[in-house]
Amino acid sequence: MSEAITLAVDCMGGDHGPRVTVAAALEFLAASPDASVVLVGQGDAIDVQLRRRKAQGRERLRVRHTTEVIAMDEPPAQALRSKKDSSMRVAVDLVKEGSAHACVSAGNTGALMAISRFVLKTLPGIDRPAIVSVLPTVKGSTYVLDLGANVDCTPEHLLQFGLMGAALVAAVEHKDRPTVGLLNIGSEDIKGNEIVKQAADLLRESGLNFIGNVEGDGVYKGAADVVVCDGFVGNVALKTSEGLAQMLARFLREEFTRNVFTRLAALIAWPVIARFRRRVDPRRYNGATLLGLRGIVVKSHGSADRYAFRRALERAADEVRAEALARIAARFGSVATGAAGTEATA
Amino acid sequence: MSEAITLAVDCMGGDHGPRVTVAAALEFLAASPDASVVLVGQGDAIDVQLRRRKAQGRERLRVRHTTEVIAMDEPPAQALRSKKDSSMRVAVDLVKEGSAHACVSAGNTGALMAISRFVLKTLPGIDRPAIVSVLPTVKGSTYVLDLGANVDCTPEHLLQFGLMGAALVAAVEHKDRPTVGLLNIGSEDIKGNEIVKQAADLLRESGLNFIGNVEGDGVYKGAADVVVCDGFVGNVALKTSEGLAQMLARFLREEFTRNVFTRLAALIAWPVIARFRRRVDPRRYNGATLLGLRGIVVKSHGSADRYAFRRALERAADEVRAEALARIAARFGSVATGAAGTEATA
Repeated sequence: MSEAITLAVDCMGGDHGPRVTVAAALEFLAASPDASVVLVGQGDAIDVQLRRRKAQGRERLRVRHTTEVIAMDEPPAQALRSKKDSSMRVAVDLVKEGSAHACVSAGNTGALMAISRFVLKTLPGIDRPAIVSVLPTVKGSTYVLDLGANVDCTPEHLLQFGLMGAALVAAVEHKDRPTVGLLNIGSEDIKGNEIVKQAADLLRESGLNFIGNVEGDGVYKGAADVVVCDGFVGNVALKTSEGLAQMLARFLREEFTRNVFTRLAALIAWPVIARFRRRVDPRRYNGATLLGLRGIVVKSHGSADRYAFRRALERAADEVRAEALARIAARFGSVATGAAGTEATA
Repeated sequence: MSEAITLAVDCMGGDHGPRVTVAAALEFLAASPDASVVLVGQGDAIDVQLRRRKAQGRERLRVRHTTEVIAMDEPPAQALRSKKDSSMRVAVDLVKEGSAHACVSAGNTGALMAISRFVLKTLPGIDRPAIVSVLPTVKGSTYVLDLGANVDCTPEHLLQFGLMGAALVAAVEHKDRPTVGLLNIGSEDIKGNEIVKQAADLLRESGLNFIGNVEGDGVYKGAADVVVCDGFVGNVALKTSEGLAQMLARFLREEFTRNVFTRLAALIAWPVIARFRRRVDPRRYNGATLLGLRGIVVKSHGSADRYAFRRALERAADEVRAEALARIAARFGSVATGAAGTEATA
């Protein structure tokens, strides 16, 4: 790897495949002189996109042909067992063998987690990887984990999520001692189920900057830099938010297109609304990291468009630049091994 | 009870007390000729509000003086044990003794649940009461339960929530076979933790119109008339939604007040935005029912203003009119007992 950052891009994943992934990768490359990409997927399909964009033979760009594709609804175990030459699998393999610092896929989440765990293994001291994503808040942004990898968590798992999340935020957001909160149904210590209460005890003694319980509304109030929860709760909270945001956007659109007068109002208010929309555009926050692995793996939303997928690529690159992996490993008292490993700097 | 509906109103609960609760009760009375109210709380404080509104001696209105008040942060067990003459306790007692069909409080949720459970008891066949609230969806509205009463639920509890919720929707929304969904992290049957999977089996065999799993975004898409979840998940989803809505409202306001041009745009777009706001106004949906008790108890948001509290009163009245209690009891193979009991009509 001559460039500072090499990303392996699963070009076949997601709802749109190479049309979106290849285009996004080219935009990313143009904006990131320190990066190179390996486009992984069916060579013909990728070539069509490269030709269309006159990008064949472009610098810092390689194509790695694969023959198989993992379907969005394919059982993870089957994908892991039988699709050794799938674009997703090979992208992860490239990280493992040291040909890429990170990989990005918009494919099947369960399959990506299963393959990443099998190929890369977890970092020492980490039982289970977690899915972490950034959400906007009134104060800036917050990192929430787990978002769906682990439906049943022990207090120890929640503690590990806190440690990993804090290390990631320290690395990527340059915050020395990020605040960590525990998602709960009340702010008092006595609230919640037994697992959450025990997790609070562990977090309190962890040396983290633990601020206690955070309620659901605290997430968007920016109550903590890192919000810890089990994957069931986190996934429901994230998707409920998506659903609400879509509903509100739809209602706003309906009101502004109701008749000729409201359409006129929309025309005049358009610059303001456009600004508002940019500010809360979920595509900006696309790219969830599979945290706790011996390698950086970023999952893009399956429905990601070019802009959204590019954001996921940028997230992966940011984590490589920030040496996030080494910092997380250091937090657990060891140094990351494997290709993407760098010196512990935490 | 000569009128069709008598509501006991805890006037001391909530962030604003009698100033809001008494005013809302008077508005409710004026709009509901079939209803009467008992204002429960400190006589002087209530009288001040009645005098201010020239409502002393008004028809269909009584005052029941109480000496104690339960604080918003008071431990429920303590409130239950030691505050026998609190406005909340007496309001629930009035339901128990048959002097009111339902009670409404904006006070301490935990205390209201503890007192209601102790005084009224649960309906036969129901292990635990649940908190249910109505949320807007792109198709209309949906009932979600539990929203925080039960942090640990067995599959049987979730089944009971489904049965109760469906009976409530059948009664209040006049839907014959409301659809019931199970909140989960994927639409496939294999998703979720063991409890949710077992709950799905029970719901499938229950005779309910069970449509399977509903993901977080399905709530606001109106995927089901009733969405069932444990109280931890439901509470987080509800409060996360509140937080997101507040953040979006704030960002929209910030964009429209950025400078003189955006303020002008706001002026022109104002009627449209006002219509949008009315449509998603959370105050319209205020009033969560404590479901599964031998009496109707409605919890208002603590921060409710006059309009919001009035909506909670209207919700209680609607449930009395719809004979919701008897219908729920009938669903569990028995008839509601106690004062508010009516004949089973389901």
